[in-house]
Amino acid sequence: MEQILEMAKRAKMAASALATLSSPKRKAALLRIADNLERRENEIVTANEKDVEEGKKKKLSNAMIDRLILDSERISSMAAGIREIAEQPDPVGEVTRMWTRPNGLLVGKMRIPLGVVGIIYESRPNVTADAAALCLKSGNAVLLRGGSEALESNLAIGRIIQGSLSEEGVPEEVVQVIPIADRNAILVMVQLEDYLDLIIPRGGEGLIRFVVENSRVPVIKHYKGVCHVFVDESADLEMAQAICVNAKVQRPGVCNAMETLLVHEAVAEEFLPKMVEKFRELGVEIRGCSKTQALCGKDVVPVTEEDWPTEYLDLILSVKVVAGLDEAVSHIEKYGSSHTESIVTKDYANAQAFLRRVNSSVVLVNASTRFSDGQQLGLGAEIGISTTKLHAFGPMGAQDLTTTKFIIFGEGQVRTP
Amino acid sequence: MEQILEMAKRAKMAASALATLSSPKRKAALLRIADNLERRENEIVTANEKDVEEGKKKKLSNAMIDRLILDSERISSMAAGIREIAEQPDPVGEVTRMWTRPNGLLVGKMRIPLGVVGIIYESRPNVTADAAALCLKSGNAVLLRGGSEALESNLAIGRIIQGSLSEEGVPEEVVQVIPIADRNAILVMVQLEDYLDLIIPRGGEGLIRFVVENSRVPVIKHYKGVCHVFVDESADLEMAQAICVNAKVQRPGVCNAMETLLVHEAVAEEFLPKMVEKFRELGVEIRGCSKTQALCGKDVVPVTEEDWPTEYLDLILSVKVVAGLDEAVSHIEKYGSSHTESIVTKDYANAQAFLRRVNSSVVLVNASTRFSDGQQLGLGAEIGISTTKLHAFGPMGAQDLTTTKFIIFGEGQVRTP
Repeated sequence: MEQILEMAKRAKMAASALATLSSPKRKAALLRIADNLERRENEIVTANEKDVEEGKKKKLSNAMIDRLILDSERISSMAAGIREIAEQPDPVGEVTRMWTRPNGLLVGKMRIPLGVVGIIYESRPNVTADAAALCLKSGNAVLLRGGSEALESNLAIGRIIQGSLSEEGVPEEVVQVIPIADRNAILVMVQLEDYLDLIIPRGGEGLIRFVVENSRVPVIKHYKGVCHVFVDESADLEMAQAICVNAKVQRPGVCNAMETLLVHEAVAEEFLPKMVEKFRELGVEIRGCSKTQALCGKDVVPVTEEDWPTEYLDLILSVKVVAGLDEAVSHIEKYGSSHTESIVTKDYANAQAFLRRVNSSVVLVNASTRFSDGQQLGLGAEIGISTTKLHAFGPMGAQDLTTTKFIIFGEGQVRTP
Repeated sequence: MEQILEMAKRAKMAASALATLSSPKRKAALLRIADNLERRENEIVTANEKDVEEGKKKKLSNAMIDRLILDSERISSMAAGIREIAEQPDPVGEVTRMWTRPNGLLVGKMRIPLGVVGIIYESRPNVTADAAALCLKSGNAVLLRGGSEALESNLAIGRIIQGSLSEEGVPEEVVQVIPIADRNAILVMVQLEDYLDLIIPRGGEGLIRFVVENSRVPVIKHYKGVCHVFVDESADLEMAQAICVNAKVQRPGVCNAMETLLVHEAVAEEFLPKMVEKFRELGVEIRGCSKTQALCGKDVVPVTEEDWPTEYLDLILSVKVVAGLDEAVSHIEKYGSSHTESIVTKDYANAQAFLRRVNSSVVLVNASTRFSDGQQLGLGAEIGISTTKLHAFGPMGAQDLTTTKFIIFGEGQVRTP
């Protein structure tokens, strides 16, 4: 308890120093971190091996072990991500608008850091580097509390980051990894409203609900991604099949994978049997509406009302034949999670209507839902995804870790009345 | 309870219809509201007279009665504010950025409404019209819960707004005034996390703390405004005196009035005695540091540690002589409320340093703190002021009631890897 409070206090002081650190200084620190992560790769791998060994003893699933492993290639990719962030335009100090009032006051809005950000995450140790880099880029101090299964790896990465900061004359308290693995560390962290400005939990729904229910600090989060693809009447059906395969199969365990396929009834007969056959080959279980069952035979499991809002995170797919765009949009409104939806269409008006009417955080035309990701959208990396609309909505990059203050230049103006 | 829940449900449905209502439609509705408020002025005045009479029976202070009164002039000014909002560019649908990814995806960010906004406020009935207009402009439905002392006035304004919406074919549930005056209405409202996207409380610190402590819906708020003016060594001292008088005296009971004056020691002897004399004439009590006492004589009350963070909302002022910019900035960091601070200076570097280093929501050079106000800054009106950095910081206009979604145009792109 005492230790985390101390870390938070030091973070707040460091944030104050960081807020006025010049852009080239922050960039140099980022590049130094990237270099040192590669140069000191062995330290990371050695620490990581301890985590992996421990994880195997604890019988973690293969998927979890896979997420945990850091090898030379993954470390290089971490460093590359940081270099990409370093090269991006600096969000801090950007004046986003400026206008003159009738009385001559020049009024502008300038981006400033939020202050201190807390990140609470599970297995993947690359989050440590990504989150630290995005916070540093945006002038925020960060407290990182990763999963117990990745503790040694996270601490090793944290040491290298702090060393790099010191080498560049940046206070090393800007990035701190909390060395305490148990859940009480989270409980302590989320009560520190006087020191933390924002908490971003990343992980399973259980972790996120735990953070939201206990936090006095503002939280930005998403619980789940129930992503939809709507294949419209005019869709290029080959394109539709390729997008659906990619959205469902390329990585089924992530939040931007498709969970529900909606098909316009006018093309259902031509599209669905082949699509379902393809999914069968790829090992995807289909849970379909009555029309899907009628078109695609008995291998289709009847879908239930509980399936529609379910995030399977697995090779399972809900399928519904709809009367058209209106029904597709209504279905998404009713069962969706405001995460990511895509329409496949050749019709201009329907593309525009879908974009306008679907208020999910990411809405695509003729592209896979898998692009709903900070890296893929050009943010360099992402600090998280928000499916609530306040402050940020969708994948969040460095710019989303800033706010704006009003700056006003006068020549002695006073107010009347 | 049941009634407020029903209102919230209807608001959510109305918000969904409103989100796709065209910009000219929303503009026409705003202009209709402005016209009808003026045309049906008598209804408002009659309702308002009941509130005022009731208020006098309850022995409300003169200041509260004054805030409550609506006359022809104030109603015209309400209508003028709405017309100004109507003429502003429409924030909804604005694409704030757009860029192309190497794979050809065209990625943009489009402004969309938040959904349903709840406003909880005290005496001033003009908030009903301002808040309704800003929400309508930004495509949000709104639930308005004003103070019991203004209930009849608020209901009358609400009826006129709903009538105007109907005349323009906009669902009247977009703007609803909660007709229940007791505090339980607030308690019910702040629990409706499934229907409300944001709550903005406006009023005294007690009301705001009550909302924050009980709300499950995100809250944007500010508790108090402890605003500072720093008179730098190089200040034009006449300008400094005019700014200080305006900031302290023009309307001492509001959050953007100056509460603390910081004076550079190099000009203290020249500036402070005259300034304090002027304040004395204007009836301002001075609570000064030892140097201020030494310079300005025995009428200066010794300031205490408790005074520095105090929002007097009255003709009282804390005064401190400081060694320079650094001490001024440190003092503001330690005792300020992140609301509004101003520097009076002729020095370019100090102006820039103050703007950069002070991270309050509004930072001014050579202008009165009283300009920290949505109307004054050109936002048309303000829905509130935020002194927390998440989502919005400073006076909030219609644009601050939106968020952005990602819109992505593809030609069949799928993700690898």
